[in-house]
Amino acid sequence: MSVQSFGDKLAEKVRQKESPLVVGLDPRWDHLPAELRKDDHADWAARAEAYFEFCRDVIDVISPFAPAVKPQAAFFEQLGPEGMHALHRTICHAQAKGLLVILDGKRGDISSTGQAYAQGYLTPRDAGGAWGADALTVNPYLGQDSLEPFVEVAEAFGGGIFVLVKTSNPGGGLFQDLLANERPLYAHVAHLVEQMSAQFATGSGYGAVGAVVGATYPAQLQELRRAMPHAWILVPGYGSQGGTANDVAAAFDSLGLGALVNSSRGIIFAYEQPAFREAHAGRPWQQAVETAAQKAAEELRYATRASL
Amino acid sequence: MSVQSFGDKLAEKVRQKESPLVVGLDPRWDHLPAELRKDDHADWAARAEAYFEFCRDVIDVISPFAPAVKPQAAFFEQLGPEGMHALHRTICHAQAKGLLVILDGKRGDISSTGQAYAQGYLTPRDAGGAWGADALTVNPYLGQDSLEPFVEVAEAFGGGIFVLVKTSNPGGGLFQDLLANERPLYAHVAHLVEQMSAQFATGSGYGAVGAVVGATYPAQLQELRRAMPHAWILVPGYGSQGGTANDVAAAFDSLGLGALVNSSRGIIFAYEQPAFREAHAGRPWQQAVETAAQKAAEELRYATRASL
Repeated sequence: MSVQSFGDKLAEKVRQKESPLVVGLDPRWDHLPAELRKDDHADWAARAEAYFEFCRDVIDVISPFAPAVKPQAAFFEQLGPEGMHALHRTICHAQAKGLLVILDGKRGDISSTGQAYAQGYLTPRDAGGAWGADALTVNPYLGQDSLEPFVEVAEAFGGGIFVLVKTSNPGGGLFQDLLANERPLYAHVAHLVEQMSAQFATGSGYGAVGAVVGATYPAQLQELRRAMPHAWILVPGYGSQGGTANDVAAAFDSLGLGALVNSSRGIIFAYEQPAFREAHAGRPWQQAVETAAQKAAEELRYATRASL
Repeated sequence: MSVQSFGDKLAEKVRQKESPLVVGLDPRWDHLPAELRKDDHADWAARAEAYFEFCRDVIDVISPFAPAVKPQAAFFEQLGPEGMHALHRTICHAQAKGLLVILDGKRGDISSTGQAYAQGYLTPRDAGGAWGADALTVNPYLGQDSLEPFVEVAEAFGGGIFVLVKTSNPGGGLFQDLLANERPLYAHVAHLVEQMSAQFATGSGYGAVGAVVGATYPAQLQELRRAMPHAWILVPGYGSQGGTANDVAAAFDSLGLGALVNSSRGIIFAYEQPAFREAHAGRPWQQAVETAAQKAAEELRYATRASL
C-alpha cells in the first residue's frame, strides 16, 4: 500500500480547513489559566498534567480552524520526563482530532544518531515509533548526511521535515546571512532543501522536505519561496513576534498553498489580552483561544488569496 | 556563595582522573548484552529499564577512568517518555558516582524557547531544574542571541555548553567549510565561542563555553585549539569513527588540559569485539567495558603528554 506523501497531506488539510494556520503549542507555567495553575508548588507530574490539559483544550477549540499544531518540545522537556509524557499525550490527542503534528524540536545529529531521532519521532506509533509525529523541525548545521536519515524515515511513512533556513530571531543573520560564493548561507541551505524535496515531490508538487523561514524577514521569504518551489515553508514569527499577514503573503504559491504560518502566544494565551479580559470577564479562557484562532485563520486565508 | 566554574571543574576532574576521556553513553537495543536484551518484544518501559541498567553498570566500571560521561539524548528519546526517565536516572547515577554529565542533545532555539532548554537541562536539580546536567551540546545555526540564554544559565550555576563548531561526520563540511570573508563558517563560529568563553574565563583559564570539534579533522583541531584558547574542546570521533590518539594530541594545551575526548561504541560495546569474546568467553560484559575504558584512558593520557 502506498502512503500519502506529506506534501500532499498538507495540501489536503490546508484546503479542508481553508487556512494555512498552524497553532504553536508552547505551554508555559506562568501563562496558564488560573484554573490550571492552582498551585505554584506543584511537582513535575502535576505541572505536566496541567500542560496536557491546557494543550488538550486548546486543540479542541482550534481544530476547526487549523490544519496542524506545532508543539514546542523545549517547554515539555523543561518539566523533565513527566513533561515528555504530556508531550506524547498532546501529540496523540491532536492526531485523534484530525490535526497534523509538526514537532518543533530542531533536532539534528550525525548518522546513526540522527537515525535514532528520525525513527523515534517520525515513525508512526502503529509502525513501532515511540512518538509518531507527522513532521519534525531539524537543524542543517551538520550537513546533508545528517538530514538524510530524517528524509528516509519521512519518505517511508508519509512524514515530513522542516529544515531551518532563515530563522525569525533578531540575531538569526549572524551566521545565516554570511556570504559564501556571493550567496548567504541560508541560500545554500535552501538549495539543498529544494534538491531534497524536488526528488520526491508528488501530486501537490511538494515534497516531504520543507523549510523554516521567519515572517520577520519578508524580503527573504519572497526570495526563498522562488528558490524552493517544491518545499513547504513553515513560517514562524507571525503575530507576537511582529510578522503581519502582509509579510507572509509572499510565502504562498499561486494556488494559495506552499506555506504554513505559525502563531503561538497570540492564540494560546489570547485570554491574557486586555481586550478579551474587558469584554469577556467571567467567560472561559477557551473562548478567547477559539476566537483568536478563528481570527488568525481568517486573516491568513486572505493572505493566501493576496498571493493570487 | 560563589560556584566553581565549569571550566575549573573540568580541569580539576581531568587532573583527578589523569585522563581527558569522556565515555559516550549511546545505548542501542540491538547491541545490549544478551542478559539485558532478554525479550525483543519488550515494551518501552522494559527497554528503558534495560537502557538504565546498562548505563548504570557502564558508569560503575568506567568511573575510575573518566572525568565525564556524555549521554546521547537521541537514543533515550527513541524510546519515548519512558526512555526519558531512563536518561534522567542515568544522569543522576553518573553524578552520584562523581562524574560530570555532558548531555549530548545538540539543542538550540530562539529567545525564550532556548531559555526553556537552558533552564530545563542546566539548572541543577536542587535549584529547581528538571534534569540538572552539568553541560549540554548546542547548535549555533540560530546565532549568538540563541546561545545567550544557555550561557546565562551555565554561568549562574557552574554549568557549561559545547557549541558545535566542526562536526565529525563525513558531510559536516557542506556548510561548515563554506568560505565567508575568506574564513570557513566553522571559524566564524569558533570566533564567537572564544569571545563568549574568554569573557568569563576563571582560574583554569577556561570559560563555560566550549566547542565540539571532531577528531576526524586533525588539521582543523590544531587550528581551532589556537583560535579558541579559552574554550574547552569536546572531541568526538575518537575510536570507532576513525580518530586516533595521535589525531587528538593537538587539541590539548601545554598542561595537557583544554580538551575532552569522547569514545562511545569502542568502550560501551567492547564485549562485542572478537578479541574480548575469544579471550574472555564466559566473563561478564562489564569486564570488557572496564578494560576498554582503562585502555582508552591510558592512550589519551599519553596523547595529552605528547602535547607538552
